[in-house]
Amino acid sequence: MAREVNLETLRHGTTLIKRGFAKMQKGGVVMDVTTAEQARIAEEAGAVAVMALERVPADIRKEGGVSRMSDPKVIEEIIDAVTIPVMAKARIGHVVEARVLETLGVDMIDESEVLTPADPYFHIDKHGYTVPFVCGARTLGEATRRVWEGAAMIRTKGEAGTGDIVEAVRHRRQILHAIQEVGHMDKDELLQVARNYATSYESLPQVIRKEHGFDGGKRGRKEEVFPPGKSIEEIESGLLGVLLEIKSLHRLPVVDFAAGGIATPADAALMMTLGNDGVFVGSGIFKSTNPAARAKAIVEATTHWDDPKTVAEVSKGLGDAMRGISNASLPLEQQLATRGW
Amino acid sequence: MAREVNLETLRHGTTLIKRGFAKMQKGGVVMDVTTAEQARIAEEAGAVAVMALERVPADIRKEGGVSRMSDPKVIEEIIDAVTIPVMAKARIGHVVEARVLETLGVDMIDESEVLTPADPYFHIDKHGYTVPFVCGARTLGEATRRVWEGAAMIRTKGEAGTGDIVEAVRHRRQILHAIQEVGHMDKDELLQVARNYATSYESLPQVIRKEHGFDGGKRGRKEEVFPPGKSIEEIESGLLGVLLEIKSLHRLPVVDFAAGGIATPADAALMMTLGNDGVFVGSGIFKSTNPAARAKAIVEATTHWDDPKTVAEVSKGLGDAMRGISNASLPLEQQLATRGW
Repeated sequence: MAREVNLETLRHGTTLIKRGFAKMQKGGVVMDVTTAEQARIAEEAGAVAVMALERVPADIRKEGGVSRMSDPKVIEEIIDAVTIPVMAKARIGHVVEARVLETLGVDMIDESEVLTPADPYFHIDKHGYTVPFVCGARTLGEATRRVWEGAAMIRTKGEAGTGDIVEAVRHRRQILHAIQEVGHMDKDELLQVARNYATSYESLPQVIRKEHGFDGGKRGRKEEVFPPGKSIEEIESGLLGVLLEIKSLHRLPVVDFAAGGIATPADAALMMTLGNDGVFVGSGIFKSTNPAARAKAIVEATTHWDDPKTVAEVSKGLGDAMRGISNASLPLEQQLATRGW
Repeated sequence: MAREVNLETLRHGTTLIKRGFAKMQKGGVVMDVTTAEQARIAEEAGAVAVMALERVPADIRKEGGVSRMSDPKVIEEIIDAVTIPVMAKARIGHVVEARVLETLGVDMIDESEVLTPADPYFHIDKHGYTVPFVCGARTLGEATRRVWEGAAMIRTKGEAGTGDIVEAVRHRRQILHAIQEVGHMDKDELLQVARNYATSYESLPQVIRKEHGFDGGKRGRKEEVFPPGKSIEEIESGLLGVLLEIKSLHRLPVVDFAAGGIATPADAALMMTLGNDGVFVGSGIFKSTNPAARAKAIVEATTHWDDPKTVAEVSKGLGDAMRGISNASLPLEQQLATRGW
């Protein structure tokens, strides 16, 4: 008799399968939507997936307040409205929002700095979920930490809701240059980098040592600093593993999208020329004067990013792009990219 | 002839009985109410107790001014309106507000940083009351001091009135990690921690030493620094006793609730996953668009915190959560959690 196979386990859950799902989005555009109607427009325009969220970043910026996971009812309506994958955002470190989204059957969770972070110390331990995660990163350090924690896709943070591409370019260039540097390092040097990358997990122990008035000596290095009970040594060795993978692949071991500030077809194509595997567009579409046409044009430009004629053609007569905010004019406390670490 | 038993003494007053009453709230949701009508909505929704206060934290934040104990008439109306326990807030160090509340027959007093502190040096000596107290804490140091002073329940301070869960998570993680550290320490190290924790009782003597121009030499260690006439040595030895209890129990010796920023069912469940014994919800309910439905959903999510399906189900179609204020955007002087020490 044939051995029984648990299809659920096969379909989900391993790092390989989660990264594989993420890879299937390659070359595509993921669009932020807040309603089933917007999701239909996005699918019609050729989006490879939609991202369900409560408010687009431009509105989060304008209205202020706390941004959280969408109403599960709206997420279900969006899932019912389209045939493409549906992603949804959970707050950084909010393990219950993530579990709720997993239960609802979303195809990918974005642990996103665009929402108000829920945990000041730790991101979600993403290995504990069957659903794949995407996380934002400004630097290779952030990307390495998120991949070690189980992210199946990385995206630049950029500066969401501004319509200003400069931060996405900054983050992409920082990650690219760091990958190049890593490529030149030997294992000892990489261990040094891994140790440096690991320090952000030590901010909680540091707070406690300060309150207790002493550092706990050797024990300080052995305490559990990441929620599933990992010691700092285990974290360092895990980060080293990811760095070795990056060195051998000359790229991140997961797909790597651009996000945060993409407002035009040319912006999307720009990020593709920088080697990104695809793009997320948020406020850029539904804050423009003609969302359906602009969505279609951004999909075209992402596919034909190395053909300026096509990018020129699809950029014609789209109406106004989102007005946006120049990133340079944003005070530090309004920069969403500084959330997460 | 049977020995006469003073029932009043039996019913109230001992640490054991006060902690026992607090334990009976375990797994439940305590809801802030300002009127008898709100108290009825809370009871109907399944609150394990209500907390009477003059204004919910979101309004305290918006309107500014000094926040004090509620009008005793309103507290009596709330007591008459519901059958569940009624808690009420007194200002930090305001022993007369506490005595008034005790006289009114409230079931628990919250010596709360949400109200404007009345004493800049000392919290209430809570052993002197028959009614049990709950106090807020950001750190294990604060929690240890409050337990030593007689608190029968601890809650995270979080950042009340923001609808932002991040500070409650911060305080919970800080307390959890510090408990872990304490678990690894021997008695000498714990004494060192107790001494560090005790320094906050010395701010008054320090002020006086500064005015007098000398530190009083050896006598500085023997003066009475806590209202019932405790010396710093007695305080250190008392705090050491609480720390030894924490070490042996691997948790606080009293029930430990989450409070400050809970606005959604998922937020309540998140705090339960972090090991809290129950939750307080303030502005999160009566500043949302549908208080009755949201209150019920938060009770359900607190009970079934480890069942994401239930949390997802009860989260559907609740209407808008309180908009709130992202904690990161709050200037330091508006952070209520910094009150108390």
